[in-house]
Amino acid sequence: MSLDRLIDAVRRTNNPTVAGLDPTLAYIPEHIKAAAFAAHGETLEGAAAALLAFNKGLIDALCDIVPAVKPQAAYYELYGWPGVRTLADTIAYAQSRGMFLITDGKRNDIGATMEAYAAAHLGTTAVGGNRFSAFGADALTVTGYLGTDGIAPLLTVCRERDAGIFVLAKTSNPSSGELQDLEVDGVPIYRRMGDLCETWGTELPGKSSYSGVGAVVGATYPAQLAELRKALPRTYFLVPGYGAQGGGAADVAGGFDENGEGAIINASRSILCAWQRENCPGEDFAGAARREALRMREDLNRVRG
Amino acid sequence: MSLDRLIDAVRRTNNPTVAGLDPTLAYIPEHIKAAAFAAHGETLEGAAAALLAFNKGLIDALCDIVPAVKPQAAYYELYGWPGVRTLADTIAYAQSRGMFLITDGKRNDIGATMEAYAAAHLGTTAVGGNRFSAFGADALTVTGYLGTDGIAPLLTVCRERDAGIFVLAKTSNPSSGELQDLEVDGVPIYRRMGDLCETWGTELPGKSSYSGVGAVVGATYPAQLAELRKALPRTYFLVPGYGAQGGGAADVAGGFDENGEGAIINASRSILCAWQRENCPGEDFAGAARREALRMREDLNRVRG
Repeated sequence: MSLDRLIDAVRRTNNPTVAGLDPTLAYIPEHIKAAAFAAHGETLEGAAAALLAFNKGLIDALCDIVPAVKPQAAYYELYGWPGVRTLADTIAYAQSRGMFLITDGKRNDIGATMEAYAAAHLGTTAVGGNRFSAFGADALTVTGYLGTDGIAPLLTVCRERDAGIFVLAKTSNPSSGELQDLEVDGVPIYRRMGDLCETWGTELPGKSSYSGVGAVVGATYPAQLAELRKALPRTYFLVPGYGAQGGGAADVAGGFDENGEGAIINASRSILCAWQRENCPGEDFAGAARREALRMREDLNRVRG
Repeated sequence: MSLDRLIDAVRRTNNPTVAGLDPTLAYIPEHIKAAAFAAHGETLEGAAAALLAFNKGLIDALCDIVPAVKPQAAYYELYGWPGVRTLADTIAYAQSRGMFLITDGKRNDIGATMEAYAAAHLGTTAVGGNRFSAFGADALTVTGYLGTDGIAPLLTVCRERDAGIFVLAKTSNPSSGELQDLEVDGVPIYRRMGDLCETWGTELPGKSSYSGVGAVVGATYPAQLAELRKALPRTYFLVPGYGAQGGGAADVAGGFDENGEGAIINASRSILCAWQRENCPGEDFAGAARREALRMREDLNRVRG
């Protein structure tokens, strides 16, 4: 009912990294695409097969050193329902290799509709006398613009299925301040959202101080990250913006608590495309991803307690 | 590049209604489920087949009197990738019957990720030398919490594909005020979001005063609906909350402009489940939906100019 399994996995691997699985065809080596297109043609099915093969290679290369992966739903929806099938297959495969799975969907809605999203992505679906796990992630990113009505259905499912959520608070993009930095009685919206996370989190207590309700706080705003870490003792952070988006280890340092915990740092392109940046053969894409993940672990461990 | 096609369709049918296609198995008549389960078993595939048959029956019954349908992505994701395939098939079928198609996904992200969502739901996907329409809706609901970085990629695709978006402003749920009603210098957040819609809309001008950037404003807050209608002359409204959520024609009246335009009113359960409320045989579900849609049209036309 919390993020305890994630916290345990970070300790086990001594690595506060989540690898973002945001594959597009441009990131995938030619030999993988050639095989997939030979089997399925240059179709959505072919693209989806290439994505899955790429993901499986990355997962195999990372699963003993990186505790978690975060597929971004958009990159799977881009390839239609075959892409969405690859999302489901990727989730199942990563979990079978022991990784904690965060679906980055930023879903948001109310009432019965949010119940459907919660069941789809974290829970189970009833069909007649049977129950199925439609996507079955361990955690889901969500947007809190609709307030408690959009979060409560998730808390119920998280409690039943030992899952968690990450609510957008202060995002990593340049224009995040247009709404999130607006001040209400001297308090910015991102902080209000953080306070809501603390409140929602009381319903999903964990073994440590951290609840099952985390927050997304970008590495590109290190001052706000450090401010929120101090202000939100119950809220675990998912921190995007490291690597390709420009954040470095010094920028994320403020996201960790005095024990060097409380945050997991996402890197997507820097790991997925390491083979391109290394300029190594496409056949070594997984090796390059592993080398970059090891470099990142060292980089992060230098700045946490 | 705007919502002109929607506005034309409302005029043609003299009906400012969008039918929400939010099917769950509980809403679907037994004979449809029995046929789908006989073919596919009590599986996600079986459920997805039942959803598609139900939707097609509704679309056939509504397409000459209702201008638009709005499938809610959550109810399709609930049935896994087979459910998402049914979403794609539903979109294609409704468009083949001449209906304007709004995918209710409340998607939100930034940069390349939002480009992927925009291409997936409104644009096209390149695979090798081919291009595919992954979902291909005419409009998409989105959440603006991330600011312009999350909206700009949509505007590009809307321009290319003559599509539109609806941004959440003031939602219909009881807790929508937790964030949306907070005041910044005396101006509530929902109004700020509306002002952003006006700004973004300048990039997608239409034939009428309305742009391709609409806003979602709930029928359950009639005072705010009327306030926003006056304040946002460029922004077309998608209004949920009529019917099962408690809003009536009087509540939505303030959403229309002096010409009786500027808003489309959503009804989901009241149309989908009309056969259950009428207590008529399941075989007549489409007839009951049509009767309710005709009643709703009359109800709405009484209050618009």
